[in-house]
Amino acid sequence: MERILTTEVAAHVGERVCIAGWLHSLRLLGSINFLVIRDGWGLVQAVAETEAEMVPLTESNAGVESVIKIEGLVVSESQAPGGYELHELQIEVITPVSEVPPISLNKRKITAGLSTLLDHAVVANRHPARRAILRLANGTMAGFRSTLLARGFTEIQTPKIVASATESGANVFKLDYFGRPAYLAQSPQFYKQIMVGIFERVFEVGPVFRAEPHDTARHLNEYVSLDAEFGFIENHFTVMAVLRDVIAGILTTLNEQYRAELELLHVQVPVVPAEIPYIHFADAQELIFKRYKVDVRGEPDLSPQDERWLGEWAQQEFGSDFLYVTGYPMVKRPFYTYPEPGRPQYSNSFDLIFRGTELVTGGQRLHRYEDYVAALERARLPLEPFAAYLEAFKYGMAPHGGFAIGSERLLMQLIGAPNVKLTTLFPRDMARLTP
Amino acid sequence: MERILTTEVAAHVGERVCIAGWLHSLRLLGSINFLVIRDGWGLVQAVAETEAEMVPLTESNAGVESVIKIEGLVVSESQAPGGYELHELQIEVITPVSEVPPISLNKRKITAGLSTLLDHAVVANRHPARRAILRLANGTMAGFRSTLLARGFTEIQTPKIVASATESGANVFKLDYFGRPAYLAQSPQFYKQIMVGIFERVFEVGPVFRAEPHDTARHLNEYVSLDAEFGFIENHFTVMAVLRDVIAGILTTLNEQYRAELELLHVQVPVVPAEIPYIHFADAQELIFKRYKVDVRGEPDLSPQDERWLGEWAQQEFGSDFLYVTGYPMVKRPFYTYPEPGRPQYSNSFDLIFRGTELVTGGQRLHRYEDYVAALERARLPLEPFAAYLEAFKYGMAPHGGFAIGSERLLMQLIGAPNVKLTTLFPRDMARLTP
Repeated sequence: MERILTTEVAAHVGERVCIAGWLHSLRLLGSINFLVIRDGWGLVQAVAETEAEMVPLTESNAGVESVIKIEGLVVSESQAPGGYELHELQIEVITPVSEVPPISLNKRKITAGLSTLLDHAVVANRHPARRAILRLANGTMAGFRSTLLARGFTEIQTPKIVASATESGANVFKLDYFGRPAYLAQSPQFYKQIMVGIFERVFEVGPVFRAEPHDTARHLNEYVSLDAEFGFIENHFTVMAVLRDVIAGILTTLNEQYRAELELLHVQVPVVPAEIPYIHFADAQELIFKRYKVDVRGEPDLSPQDERWLGEWAQQEFGSDFLYVTGYPMVKRPFYTYPEPGRPQYSNSFDLIFRGTELVTGGQRLHRYEDYVAALERARLPLEPFAAYLEAFKYGMAPHGGFAIGSERLLMQLIGAPNVKLTTLFPRDMARLTP
Repeated sequence: MERILTTEVAAHVGERVCIAGWLHSLRLLGSINFLVIRDGWGLVQAVAETEAEMVPLTESNAGVESVIKIEGLVVSESQAPGGYELHELQIEVITPVSEVPPISLNKRKITAGLSTLLDHAVVANRHPARRAILRLANGTMAGFRSTLLARGFTEIQTPKIVASATESGANVFKLDYFGRPAYLAQSPQFYKQIMVGIFERVFEVGPVFRAEPHDTARHLNEYVSLDAEFGFIENHFTVMAVLRDVIAGILTTLNEQYRAELELLHVQVPVVPAEIPYIHFADAQELIFKRYKVDVRGEPDLSPQDERWLGEWAQQEFGSDFLYVTGYPMVKRPFYTYPEPGRPQYSNSFDLIFRGTELVTGGQRLHRYEDYVAALERARLPLEPFAAYLEAFKYGMAPHGGFAIGSERLLMQLIGAPNVKLTTLFPRDMARLTP
């Protein structure tokens, strides 16, 4: 009999079907035994009412996580998870497992501590709650991709081994490239800008690498960056409008295609305003001074506390979980940042603050070759390592800008995870290279 | 006036429109001047019949690759590329370029040599023929993704920094991970197998890294691998059936959504038979002996010449560009390969040969923990570095298999490119780390 998926069982009431998967749980009550089978998509309960039905399991000493096949009659049963269960079973054991897994996979709540969970991620990620988070990670990427494809963007894959550090010399992993030093890309920034000259609108979903020597709940040393860059913008406000649609597109994708996961995790997806409110960096510092009586005016950046205050203000003032802070001081932004016309100490850049924490950074970039030469000189950086990058500007570049979303951080904030390491399959931190 | 794309011009005959892009070519014929504008999607011709129209260009000394905006009246003109052109122009120069690009972008044929092309890829990739290839690369990934998504597969992103070499100790890039040695993933093999226990059907589109110390027309040191892996297979023939659909899905995507690129490059997309013919490794060697009078029987692998002969045979015998060779000897396959039942010196594995060259490798993998322990012992490999990987099998794994397509090599063979480096944005080879 051909196997069907657990999600297809409901369509076969009154028929005998074959399902296959992992023995998720096993409750032996003597005269009646409840088995729950988990496949890649869901769970289905099967009920054995005779000893004979259980013989294949008992004979091979097959406990939870054994891989099995069950043929049975689909019966509607309101008490069963999902509303259906299998009766009159014929069980086949494919891969028996007798050892108890290091993490209990069939309890609703995961009780294992963070390091146990990460050490045994290979098994722990089978837990329905873990799986739901990981599927949302997938939905985040899918929503990002579909929103931009619908807007004429082209997906690209840029090199991850690079000749020089992208953003700065710090926090970069060094490797041996046939006897020469090379580095792992900290971001696809330079390449996505170059690609504006080729495809005009581009995005990338790919790994980035940061050798940040601190182990916090918000840092990963390898993560998935959702990068976009595009040409013929007016200024950073054009970029902010696209980013608004991208965030809305991601959340719509999750709402429409990942309902079961959101419900399992009790996640309320926020509403993105048609226009996300914004405040200039200088005005934000004034506001903090007036409203919270703390004078941060003149500081070159916002502190986490400043961001929380601004998030609170956006919520009270606009009822918005989202707030753009624009115009960050040039001193705190990379050399390719476009300065604010008329106030060149500020920049045409922005951060998107979500529920009081920075989520996305973006802005307008320089597009004239002469501006790059001047900016690199001002930053006391030599031109030579940037020669290939500069060539893209030498031969004509449109005004352009873009943004980068850390996909794990977005998910962390969305589901309220206590640690970003919980939002990815197999996280990398200072101590963790495996699994 | 709001800008429209070059691809939208045809819908506006008789109207004034605004287009923006790069000045692709400029023919000055005195009384009449032809300008071609290139944006991210196509080309449009604009005709200036007065000197006044040209003033913004001449004043700023703007030559080809300058970024410009043109307002003009859309006129139907069968002589013009695409059948339409702009008249009565109002030109605005956004970024003037006076230096001549290192590669001529507006000649139909690229005359530059390979190394010039790669050295200046930042500009060379703007050439319509280069852009067409790069878009096909994008279409290859898109077709792979959409085919598998439609079959219930989940896209994953697995770590690229790993604690130990995946396939073997050779050809792996070593890096310094906070003072410890680490490696760049040669393939997502272990992770995609582990993920079968979590999502059952998974795929990944991501970079892989091979420190192969030879510089040939077929090798890249970083490339995009299209990986798939899934559970509850019967044997490697289940995998071959899915791969057949994936290749067909990729080619359908290219045929349906990338017609202009295929035409520009004069590419004939091959037809994938409903069932791709297959031949067992041992029978293939017999066939070569009988048909070509060369005795390769007993060799543990096929040579490139063997593959060409088999490709020729498949073409003559079945009229097929594709041929599966199954059952490669175990000695030439990695330790996780599933042996052929009854003939354990052979394996449940396959190569897909396309037009006489190996394109895809795949097969069934071991799924029982005891088999892994035995296989690692046989291969004289210690268990400890594989502890996390083995945990996935210890706690129940379904019979499974998968395959990996080198996306650049697929494209190379499809378009008949003389060098695989021409099929990717910014290739990495032994000598090339930039751009």
